[in-house]
This record gives sequence, structure tokens and C-alpha cells, in this order.
Amino acid sequence: MTNQNEMTNYLHAFIEGMISSGVSQAVISPGSRSTPLALLMHRQERIETFVEVDERSAAFFALGLSKASNKPVVLLCTSGTAAANYYPAICEAKASHVPLIVLTTDRPHELRQVGAPQAMDQFQLFQSHVKSFVEMAIPEGTKAMIDYAYWQGMRSTDTACQIPQGPVHLNFPLREPLLPELSRSSKIEKTTMIVTGKQQLSEDQLSKCVNAWQGKKGVIVVGGSHTTMEAECFVQLAEALNWPIIGDPLANLVSCGNKNLLIMSYADLFIQEVDMIQRPEVVVRFGMLPISKNMMFWLQTLDDSETRIYFVDETGEWQDQLKQTQIAIQAEEQMFIQAIIDKVEIKTPDTWSNQWIAWQEITDHQLSELAEMNELNETTASILVHKMMVEDGQLFVSNSNAIRFLDRFSTVETSSYQLFGNRGINGIDGIVSTALGMCATHPDRQNVLLIGDLAMYHDMNGLLLAKCYNLPLTIILLNNNGGGIFSFLSQRQLTQKDFEPIFGTPIDLDFSLVAALYGATYTKAENLEQLTSLLEETQKKPKFQVIEIVGDRQANVELYENVMRQLKDKLRST
Amino acid sequence: MTNQNEMTNYLHAFIEGMISSGVSQAVISPGSRSTPLALLMHRQERIETFVEVDERSAAFFALGLSKASNKPVVLLCTSGTAAANYYPAICEAKASHVPLIVLTTDRPHELRQVGAPQAMDQFQLFQSHVKSFVEMAIPEGTKAMIDYAYWQGMRSTDTACQIPQGPVHLNFPLREPLLPELSRSSKIEKTTMIVTGKQQLSEDQLSKCVNAWQGKKGVIVVGGSHTTMEAECFVQLAEALNWPIIGDPLANLVSCGNKNLLIMSYADLFIQEVDMIQRPEVVVRFGMLPISKNMMFWLQTLDDSETRIYFVDETGEWQDQLKQTQIAIQAEEQMFIQAIIDKVEIKTPDTWSNQWIAWQEITDHQLSELAEMNELNETTASILVHKMMVEDGQLFVSNSNAIRFLDRFSTVETSSYQLFGNRGINGIDGIVSTALGMCATHPDRQNVLLIGDLAMYHDMNGLLLAKCYNLPLTIILLNNNGGGIFSFLSQRQLTQKDFEPIFGTPIDLDFSLVAALYGATYTKAENLEQLTSLLEETQKKPKFQVIEIVGDRQANVELYENVMRQLKDKLRST
Repeated sequence: MTNQNEMTNYLHAFIEGMISSGVSQAVISPGSRSTPLALLMHRQERIETFVEVDERSAAFFALGLSKASNKPVVLLCTSGTAAANYYPAICEAKASHVPLIVLTTDRPHELRQVGAPQAMDQFQLFQSHVKSFVEMAIPEGTKAMIDYAYWQGMRSTDTACQIPQGPVHLNFPLREPLLPELSRSSKIEKTTMIVTGKQQLSEDQLSKCVNAWQGKKGVIVVGGSHTTMEAECFVQLAEALNWPIIGDPLANLVSCGNKNLLIMSYADLFIQEVDMIQRPEVVVRFGMLPISKNMMFWLQTLDDSETRIYFVDETGEWQDQLKQTQIAIQAEEQMFIQAIIDKVEIKTPDTWSNQWIAWQEITDHQLSELAEMNELNETTASILVHKMMVEDGQLFVSNSNAIRFLDRFSTVETSSYQLFGNRGINGIDGIVSTALGMCATHPDRQNVLLIGDLAMYHDMNGLLLAKCYNLPLTIILLNNNGGGIFSFLSQRQLTQKDFEPIFGTPIDLDFSLVAALYGATYTKAENLEQLTSLLEETQKKPKFQVIEIVGDRQANVELYENVMRQLKDKLRST
Repeated sequence: MTNQNEMTNYLHAFIEGMISSGVSQAVISPGSRSTPLALLMHRQERIETFVEVDERSAAFFALGLSKASNKPVVLLCTSGTAAANYYPAICEAKASHVPLIVLTTDRPHELRQVGAPQAMDQFQLFQSHVKSFVEMAIPEGTKAMIDYAYWQGMRSTDTACQIPQGPVHLNFPLREPLLPELSRSSKIEKTTMIVTGKQQLSEDQLSKCVNAWQGKKGVIVVGGSHTTMEAECFVQLAEALNWPIIGDPLANLVSCGNKNLLIMSYADLFIQEVDMIQRPEVVVRFGMLPISKNMMFWLQTLDDSETRIYFVDETGEWQDQLKQTQIAIQAEEQMFIQAIIDKVEIKTPDTWSNQWIAWQEITDHQLSELAEMNELNETTASILVHKMMVEDGQLFVSNSNAIRFLDRFSTVETSSYQLFGNRGINGIDGIVSTALGMCATHPDRQNVLLIGDLAMYHDMNGLLLAKCYNLPLTIILLNNNGGGIFSFLSQRQLTQKDFEPIFGTPIDLDFSLVAALYGATYTKAENLEQLTSLLEETQKKPKFQVIEIVGDRQANVELYENVMRQLKDKLRST
């Protein structure tokens, strides 16, 4: 057998191994060293391949594909700095539990540490930000090595998919010639079936929980990202216990289609302002802390002799920033919730939940009375996008201000749509590409991205994917010409001379040119009516477009402060 | 003292330490956690600060600043994925020996591994690609801790500047409040003077070299990046020994202003084609292998019983890909060369050098006769750019095809200008930003970037720096709509169906829109005359502009093959 044949069979077996563990998509960035893997995946019918030149965008696109499909996705690039461009998306994947199979190709050992071109140390390149690193063997064609290649493909993919899911990295040393043997298809007879159980509590452990919870004054707090189906399950738990439930926007409580009054969508606005005479006896937290700082401050006020804090966390990662957890429950969330619901016999009296429902209603009433809420601004545009999402639609929300507008002002809607974001590490990088990965997963649905100008600029290269693959994403661009979040933070106390160059950072880009460059339709929305009709179109016929909302950093703060001032009076006087 | 004061004094001391070791520039990316360091550097008069939102471009910009100034440059960003975006530039800095001081800011220890927002493991984030990693202590205001902060600033910068130069990483855990005390300037009395020696051979070691070299048939091969002054020194060595000298484009032999006939600018074209009856007795290599594959193949044919191979390498990194080195000389190159020149008494007879000079002249003559050399194409545009560089001009050349056009076809010119590139790992990433860093160092000079369309797309975000800081860079865009290098590699054997999507990767971007977006003048050059007059303008009045040359991937290959076919006949028949 020639070396070329041996390499082909070896890599073919590896790819078959990945497929047997559930891989069906790969994002490839062009390069020379990666040629054999790129061609074999491109030719493999059971793998859909995408190509993107910028590896940073490629990796975030893969992240989006995997987030929306909940399947492992492969990344492939050549040697050298190409791989280093993957790093931001890999860090986000590790933190937000997304199964990426990162394949980097490398010079063989004899060309390392000798100054060979496009060669660098790729050993454990992504440090602690991958679940596992495998330095693959040089391809060989013996049965033992074909079995090894298949096994690594299969087990690495499975490792990525095990709870908590996350990225894995395999580095392939490849020798020239780099062209694989494409003329014959080497059949792999091997198949491996993986049957995975779930982490469950015993009947006794469950009963203890139910007894500690039912009839008590409790609150459910849901962080992290969840599907609308999971969100519905959380709401059912709230219903069973008759407890208020508060969630991060990405928990999708307000967009799961259940309009239950127990969902406290305005908690961020009222929680710090109300006179909470009745304190909770139980708080049950799922996953990370929600985005709301007011929620965090409120949770910090809880006295652990008065309130029992439960923390349900399947990952075992102890992501409890407040370190309040008294009882940590390590079990698969959905099965655990269903089991609890089945056992609950006593609802907590309405006096407890009604107080919360009243606060929610006062806030809702107050917001509707505010004049600014009838004008087009970044806040009202964000609320409108949320309201205009239809059943099964997909909305991706950027970090910094965009997600906070949704968190503060979202109403509970009847349409069930899925909200996504990159809240593992909350970077403003890679947002466009991740949203496009979401869009590519269900291009037939309503697909919207809500994003600020700095995040849009940061990942502008990702737009090439929309152009190349005709991805019908509607981008709602909240353009306040700079870093709007800092106007809400302590940096706002600085003089303009210190603030603008370091935090304001206006970039003065004409985004209609960006739209033209990548073949997107562009509209500047002038008022809420126009934005409404533009969003109606996205419900019917999705297309690749940029809708720009001209915002104002200071006005965002003034609106928020005005809301808070008026709401404070109202809540205190009630 | 308040915590805020303590933090301010501590960070102020750190910055003073960096300044005492030679820091005078910093590139900052906006963020919250980095606020105190950002503001203190912004306010520090002895540090020039630049701000760039995209950390990837920011890092390459810093790389360019440092390359052009040969001084350490600071990078600063906030916590989380922001830092991961630095990775590609850091890998390149490590490989090409550029002293960057990378400062990342982080949550304090009590907010790590607990799911705090924008927090991730930043410990040894850049793995083996930095010379040193320091996890800084939490700021404190005691004398011991102020001394420590100063010391770390001073010694980390010095570490970056020691041979081989390279990046260092310091991670700063910072607690809220993040606003420093800006009203008072805390004076640091400390100053540390660093007096550094150079690695030198003894008289005896030098004499042995000279005796082994002088009068012998030798060749000098210069890889790596060198200033024109260093290049001049290499040429003087060639003159002293009367040996042909061959270099990587970045060694700047052809652009050092010395038009000595011993400089073999066309070696890549003729070296494999000539009938070399007289083989070299000595080859003296400096630094990494030059880019030319033909040179590499020729070096590989040398029989080590016939040819003594010397490898001069101050870094001690043994970057000898061919593993041929018989005598490794570890000493500072320039002093070593000067010492050798001073000792050489016998020149090698002209019969040896004349043979090489003849090959060079035949090639020159043959090129001038080729019709394609009078038409505008990517090759002739590249040659023209080289010819039109004026004294003290700065040309940055991208990887893949651009640098190979220069390597193959450059004539030896009398103007001394400096050629730069990112040839540590040869990525196509970060080229625009690195070139802008070069331009920002000497904005008054002629500043040109020669780049292909994929590299231009990959780092398009870098153009924001040109817009924000009025950097008068002329970008010569060789647009062959895709990955032109692959048409020269084995991948060209593939069918179009396999080739175009994975290697050809046309991106179909209208770069006049890119120019408009960032405020650059745009011209599409139609012929060599027009390009000549456009380049003449860059000599007089530099401005930020894009000059596009529409290329053709296949035509590049045909031109090269035509040159080689005709040259082969000519060299054989001589």
C-alpha cells in the first residue's frame, strides 16, 4: 500500500468514527496541511461542509450550528496561526457547553521546532479550554492503526457530547504528499452504538426535596441557556408549586409560549424597589446566575438562616457566583423537574404568588404609560423585535446592551420562539457568525439577530457566510456609535476626555456600505411603524438584510433612569 | 489608604516599571475590567496609546509597531474571550521574535470558577507561545507590593526584550471599584538601569572561522527578517569573501541600497536549473531557511562530506529545517560579521563568483524579453511596487503569493527601503493591522502594503485603525478572487469541483466598498503606466488608499511556467 493510500484509509476511518458518534456537519477553513481531511469530508455525503476563510468566524459559525442543532460540529483548519484564530469560539464553547470537534493539522514531528514554515507548537494549544486534547499518531495503514483512528473519531466526539458538553481538540501530524486517494471509497465495517444514561435522584432523595419545597414560600431562578421545551418544563414546575419564576433571557421563559402569570419578566426592574415583607423560605436555582444585576443583589440579601438555597446543576461545575448553595442537586434537570412535578401535592397559598404578580402588573402598567415607549429607540426596538417573533422563530441576541434591553423590558408572549446568545463568557466577538450558524440550521424559519454596532464591527467578516450560503438573517443593528454599555457602568463618571477615547469608542461606520459589500438589503428604520412592517416581512419571507436603528448612548440611560424613577414611586405607593 | 488608592499606586508602579525598561506605546481594547490600567496608561504622558475594538487587529497592530520601532509594545484588554483574540498575533510574535507585553485583566480569585460573567481561566492562556507568564498579585499598597509591581513591570519588559525577543503575558486580578484615583500622580522614585552585553566569540573562535572560510568556494544564505543596515552588513561579508549571497526577501538584501553583483536576487528561478559543476565548499546560513523552495531543494542536494554547513544563530533555537548544520555559531550576528570582515585577508577567486553572476544576468536578460513582463498582472505589479520604493520607504508584504512574487522577480535596487512581513508562522491573518503598525511608526514615509484578496478580507477590521489614526498606507491589492497559492501547489491536480470550494474559495467582494467604508481613496489600476504614476504619488504625498490590481490565478501560474521554460533553455544553452 502506498503512503497515500495508508493516509487515506486512516483518515477515512477517523471520519467514520466521528459520524458513528453523531457528526453530520463540518466547517472548513482553506489551507494546505489540512488538504486530505478537507477533501475526504467534502466528499463524504453524510457530512455537510461549509467553508469560511476567516477561522475566527468559522469557529463561531460552528458554535452557532451546534447550538441550534444540539449536535456535535467539526472544525478543520491548517497548521499555524489559523488554529489560534479558533480560540475565542473555543473558550465560549467550553463555557456554554457546546460540543465542537476541533481538528488542527500539523507538520509531522520531524518538521517541528526546526523553523519549518507555518509550523508552531500546537500541543495543548487551547489549554484548559477544551475537554480533551489528543495528539494523533502519524497515519499508518495497519489494522491496529485504522482501528485506532476510528476509535479516536468515535470517542472524541462522544467526549464532546458527554455532560457537560464542550469542545475537544485533536492535532493531526500529516506528511506530504497531502493529496488523498479520492478514487476509491474505503468501506469501514465498524459501527459502534452508544447508549447513554442520565443522572437521576433516588425516590428517597426526590421525596426529601418535595417535602422541603411544597407549601413553602419559594422562588425559582433559572439561569443558563434553555430550549423553549425545557423552559416550558420550568414553568410547569412553578405552576405545580405555585411559585414565582425568574429567568435569564436565554432561559426562554418569556418566549416558551406559556403565558403563565408566575413568570416574572420584569424582575430586574422591580425586585430591588419593592418592600418585600414576606421573604422566600426556599430559592431553587438552576444553572448560572441570570444576567440581571438587581436579581443578584437581591439574592445576596437573603439570609441563609431564613431561606434555604437549592442549586440544581447537572454539570457539577458549581457555577454559583454567590456561593450561597446549601443543597446542591446533581441530576439531569428535565427528568428531575418532571419527577418533582409528579410528586407535588400541596400548592403554596396564593398570598405568596399574588404579591409577585402584583409587582409584575404594576411594572407593566407603568411601562405602558411612558411616552418614550412609543418612540423608536434602542429599547423600544428591542421590545418590538421580541414581540414580533413568531412561533418557531429564532432570535439571536448580542451581549452588552442588547440582551439587557430584552432582560428588563420583555413581555411574556404566546408565540414560542427560541432565543439564543453567547453567554458562556459574554464576549462581543463572533456574534454575527454564531447567529448565522443558528440561521443555517433552520433557514426556513424567521431568523433575527439583535446586535450593537461594536459587536457588528467585531465580527463583520462573518457576513461572508451569509453571502456565500444565502442565509436569510435579519440583522437589527442598534447603532449608538460606540460602547453603549459603559454609559450604564461606573466609567460614566469620567470626564468626556477620558471616557470617549477609551470607553465611548465611536467608530463612525456607514453600515449601508457593509450591507452592500455582503449583498444584504439595507434599511434605516425611522419609526416604530416602519420597523413593525419590516419585521412583519421577516415573518413571511425571510431574507438577508440589515435594519439599522440609530440610537443614542445617553438616551438609553435616561430612559432607564426615567423608568426606574417613576416605577419606584408607583411600587412604594402601592 | 482606600483600596482605590492602593490599586492606583500599585498599577502606577507597574507602569513605571515598564517605562523604565523601554515601553513607550500601548494598544488598548475597550473593556470594563481593564479600566484602571487603561486610564492610567491613557493619562501617562510617556506612553502613546492607541485604541482598537477588535483585539485580534489590536494585537497585530502592536506587532507592527514593535517590528518597525524595535521597541517593546504593550497590549491591554479586558477579561474573557477578548484575550483569546490576541492569540494569533502572539504566536506570530513568539516565532518572529517581537517583544510584546500582553496585559490581560481578570476577575479576582474569589470570582473564578464560579460562573461569574466574562470570566474564564486565563492562567497560562497562551501556552508555550509566550516567553513567560505571570499571575500578578491582588493590588495592595504596602511598600513591598509597590516594589513588587514596579519590579514585575521592569523585569517582564526586559524578559520580552532579551534575545530571542518575544511576547510575555501578565494576568491582573482586579477587584471593584475599577475606577483608579486620577486626581493625584503618585511619584515613583525608583529607576533601574539595564546594561546588556552581547554574545561574542573569542579571537580564537573567530580565527578558526576565517581560516575555514577565506579563499574557499562559499555561499551565504540569509533567512529571517533584517533591517537594511543589517542587510548591508551581510553584503559586506559577501564582498569581503567574494561569495554569492542569497536571502529571503525579508532579509532586505535586494533593498538595502547596495547594488553589489554578488546579491543573487533571482536564485529561486535559476538555482535548480543550472549545471553546477563547481559545488560550494562552504555554506554559511544565518537564521531560518529563506522562503524559496528551490533554494531548499538545492541545499538538500549538498553532500556534507563535500560542503561544510555553518549555521549562525543567536537565538539558540536551532531553526534548521534541513538539519544539515555541522558548525553552529551562537553569537550576535552583526558583531560576529564585523569581526569576520576585519579578519578576512584572502578573497575567493572570481571564477567562483562569476559563474553565479552570469546566472543572475542571464535570468535578468531573459525576464526583460518576456512580453508578459510588460503587461499589468500580479507579478509585474509586485515588481513595480518594489522598484518604486524610495529611500527610507516601508513596504509590508503579505504571505502566500505576494512575497513569492517579490522573492522570484525582485531586481537589486539602489534605494534602501525596509521590507516587512509576518514570516514567523506565515499566516494570512493580521496582515493589514501589522502593516498599519509599521505605518504608524513612520507615517511621514512612503508606506505600502502588498496583499492578496483573502488576506485583505481576513483582517479587514484592521482598516479601522487607518481611519481613526489617519494612517497614510497605500494598499496594493492583488485580487485574484481566492486562494491563489493553491494553483502553485499539488492541490491544482484536483478537479474544479473539488478545487474551487475548498481551495479556490472565491469571495467576490467589491473592495471599492471596503475602501469607502473606511475612508480610503480607491483606484482600480488598468495598466502599468497608471500604476507607475499612482506609485509616484505615494513617494511624494502618502495617503490612505487602496489600489486594486485585478489578477487571475491561472495566469500567475502560466507566467511562472513560461518564465521557467524559457529560462531553462537559456541557462542550459549558455
